[in-house]
Amino acid sequence: MTEQHSVPKLVAVLGANGRMGAEAVKAVDAAPDMKLVAALGRGDSLEQLAASGAQYVVDLTVPESTEANVRFAVEHAIHTVVGTTGWDEGRLSDLESLLAAHPGTGVLIAPNFALGSVLASAFAAKASKYFESVEIIELHHPDKVDAPSGTAVRTAQLIAAERAAAQVPQSPDATTSERAGARGCEVDGVRVHSVRLRGLVAHQEVLLGGPGEQLTLRHDSFDRASFMPGVLLGVRNVAAHPGLTVGLDGYLDLGL
Amino acid sequence: MTEQHSVPKLVAVLGANGRMGAEAVKAVDAAPDMKLVAALGRGDSLEQLAASGAQYVVDLTVPESTEANVRFAVEHAIHTVVGTTGWDEGRLSDLESLLAAHPGTGVLIAPNFALGSVLASAFAAKASKYFESVEIIELHHPDKVDAPSGTAVRTAQLIAAERAAAQVPQSPDATTSERAGARGCEVDGVRVHSVRLRGLVAHQEVLLGGPGEQLTLRHDSFDRASFMPGVLLGVRNVAAHPGLTVGLDGYLDLGL
Amino acid sequence: MTEQHSVPKLVAVLGANGRMGAEAVKAVDAAPDMKLVAALGRGDSLEQLAASGAQYVVDLTVPESTEANVRFAVEHAIHTVVGTTGWDEGRLSDLESLLAAHPGTGVLIAPNFALGSVLASAFAAKASKYFESVEIIELHHPDKVDAPSGTAVRTAQLIAAERAAAQVPQSPDATTSERAGARGCEVDGVRVHSVRLRGLVAHQEVLLGGPGEQLTLRHDSFDRASFMPGVLLGVRNVAAHPGLTVGLDGYLDLGL
Amino acid sequence: MTEQHSVPKLVAVLGANGRMGAEAVKAVDAAPDMKLVAALGRGDSLEQLAASGAQYVVDLTVPESTEANVRFAVEHAIHTVVGTTGWDEGRLSDLESLLAAHPGTGVLIAPNFALGSVLASAFAAKASKYFESVEIIELHHPDKVDAPSGTAVRTAQLIAAERAAAQVPQSPDATTSERAGARGCEVDGVRVHSVRLRGLVAHQEVLLGGPGEQLTLRHDSFDRASFMPGVLLGVRNVAAHPGLTVGLDGYLDLGL
Repeated sequence: MTEQHSVPKLVAVLGANGRMGAEAVKAVDAAPDMKLVAALGRGDSLEQLAASGAQYVVDLTVPESTEANVRFAVEHAIHTVVGTTGWDEGRLSDLESLLAAHPGTGVLIAPNFALGSVLASAFAAKASKYFESVEIIELHHPDKVDAPSGTAVRTAQLIAAERAAAQVPQSPDATTSERAGARGCEVDGVRVHSVRLRGLVAHQEVLLGGPGEQLTLRHDSFDRASFMPGVLLGVRNVAAHPGLTVGLDGYLDLGL
Repeated sequence: MTEQHSVPKLVAVLGANGRMGAEAVKAVDAAPDMKLVAALGRGDSLEQLAASGAQYVVDLTVPESTEANVRFAVEHAIHTVVGTTGWDEGRLSDLESLLAAHPGTGVLIAPNFALGSVLASAFAAKASKYFESVEIIELHHPDKVDAPSGTAVRTAQLIAAERAAAQVPQSPDATTSERAGARGCEVDGVRVHSVRLRGLVAHQEVLLGGPGEQLTLRHDSFDRASFMPGVLLGVRNVAAHPGLTVGLDGYLDLGL
Repeated sequence: MTEQHSVPKLVAVLGANGRMGAEAVKAVDAAPDMKLVAALGRGDSLEQLAASGAQYVVDLTVPESTEANVRFAVEHAIHTVVGTTGWDEGRLSDLESLLAAHPGTGVLIAPNFALGSVLASAFAAKASKYFESVEIIELHHPDKVDAPSGTAVRTAQLIAAERAAAQVPQSPDATTSERAGARGCEVDGVRVHSVRLRGLVAHQEVLLGGPGEQLTLRHDSFDRASFMPGVLLGVRNVAAHPGLTVGLDGYLDLGL
Repeated sequence: MTEQHSVPKLVAVLGANGRMGAEAVKAVDAAPDMKLVAALGRGDSLEQLAASGAQYVVDLTVPESTEANVRFAVEHAIHTVVGTTGWDEGRLSDLESLLAAHPGTGVLIAPNFALGSVLASAFAAKASKYFESVEIIELHHPDKVDAPSGTAVRTAQLIAAERAAAQVPQSPDATTSERAGARGCEVDGVRVHSVRLRGLVAHQEVLLGGPGEQLTLRHDSFDRASFMPGVLLGVRNVAAHPGLTVGLDGYLDLGL
């Protein structure tokens, strides 16, 4: 009995041939408290997942297949950590109904597994009501097609909601003469600036300013490896959070 | 009765001729929910404080007089916000005894009133258990006589305590060949680096690193004005926190 | 004769009651190699300048009066350092004609006296032809009415000229989906982003990126005092540069 | 004849199996103006280099073999670009003698091929005489064994030499109470701080400060790919610089 804590978690990875999936296979394999029991890719059958004996599954596939994968896992009582995009309100609502019928199973859907990024967004929102001004700068490689980034949009929305709840007015801005675009775009009243630069990967700064002071929260993603500590943290905690959790911050101890 | 919320708080400032005190006099005077009823300096009598009708007092004096000032205020049921240094364990313990006998009165003793700095330290501590590595860089004007700064030492201690509680090992470091001092000093196992540069005021960065990612929490104090929002926040909340509070973070809503 | 080098330069300041002018009065007064012989403000006569015996004059007045001031000085063989704006092509051309008739006298017109800012712009231009990507972020207090700043526009123009001469193509950018303004404004093909934040003064970053690397040149102006070393450097060098010089970089030793 | 400029340069890479060498093989192969004619590793004979018809060779081997490689190349009139360490004064002097006997051949020995890093060091040295204060922070992954980095030491030496030549006094520092190491180490009177953090690669900041302003020159190496533009620039320019050149900055157009 005293050894029970050392029994490894049995983990399967879906999307194992993709770039993120391949990283996850390596990360699970290297984790001392996990055992990789299946690494499935395009063309493999979900029956292989059931046959593998997996207690946990990490879904890093594509929007077209993630919903079927997750539903299969829940129906087989396999806790699930999802990094695939494409979960709109309808899908989330359907999944919650399914989970209500399988009350012991947990699903985590996380748009972002980089711990530093999740923490920076949460801190930025929390701090933003104590400052007159807040703006966001996100910086990415020049092959990115959308501006601003999804993370910047979500961060701005979190900030806007927190400031609205605390009745903080919009950031002051006396600009009367602007070359079009100089002041960035607006997301729920928060200014966001997108830099595209060869050499960069994915970076974000939230700048908060008050009289005589500035608080800067910056996150740098240098490498896809940065998502793996978050994936493993998800696997380690999903069983203790039955039902649906959206966002890795739901598993972080951020009570200050 | 419906107007009751607009009755201004009656506030006195002690140390009104000092640099911080003079800023506080201006800040209280400009606050729409406060009325400055006394601005006392060296040579003024504490009886003037009692006579002023102050409900709140801000003490920005010197280590030699702060204890007598605070005790006088508590004995007269005046809520007190203290920015003066010199409160060692013995003084704090004596003050707690006095407050036990005046249960409705609140005292806030804050080593740092810059909201951004207090937030940055709290965030850094909270985040530090999720990262392999953490180091601190503090940067000040070259007339500062101590290195590292008191704020950096406190931040390092908070981080070290949080990591110890979560059983996070020390930051990795393969250095075997070091020019003396290159790797900074150590505070409870956390490396701290002190930069001194003409033009700077008071700045601090906490760098947190994990595989493929970095989280940076930076605070810049450009001006003494940066302390005033924190002083006013202290005055606004001290009555709701009877007894002794050390550190402005006790008044901040940081639950995430 | 051997002491001749220690004879102080006789300096007058025009616009002495303005904020920049008042700083200049203090700076000249404190400089060991200068003697302040006149500090003239609105309402004072230029005859007082002539009577003061000034060899050098610093003009920090307003666009309406700077041209008359400088012409008077040149006609009296007084070397002149100008920080006032409003010198368009016509005025500059007229001044050059006047200087041709007074060949021993020097005039420096500098849009920016912060040495760090002038150096950062010069370095950015020089470096920009070695990198695929370049963007500018300028950050100022929220009371500024124009965006982007004049310094950012000039920096972008310098960079664009240097890259054009070296036949470097425009920075790559795959953006196909943009929320209006996210990618900033364009100045001669260079993207510029303007942040406005309470607590800031005047700051600028030039970001240069190539495969796997980034070079960042950042300048922070915390205080009007930052212009004074440049003003004094101007006074010390203007006599050795007869004729018209535009831009403090003309006096800096930047040959690398 | 008019097409002559498009004849590709014939390039060999030595150390092709090492990490840097493998990158160089890819970079030469992808360069439109170059043709890879040999990629030699441990165990291959230098005769293969002679037989390949190479006009240029890139040496990215080990200190034990670089000298023999370069001498062989010079004796065969092959221009050489060297990224291997281990070239002490004695070896350099011997090489110069050899080159004197082969006056048409060029050799570039570069301790650093990252263009941004070379530029940042050159700019920092040039700017440093205009500022009261200068300090260096270098930041690397925690597996690095030496502190400070070789690049930081060289940068500090360049700065110290430039300031000495301009008779600029040491950076001011009023520190009287220091926890050992807080103020970093000293290299020729310049303070250097070494940060070691998981997730980082190789980064350096030079901070320059004067009254009310700061100039920051930062370089980030995210990836070994950052060295390749410098290697190719070396190959493209080495024939036009017969004899020995140490440092890539000798080939850069930095006249300002």
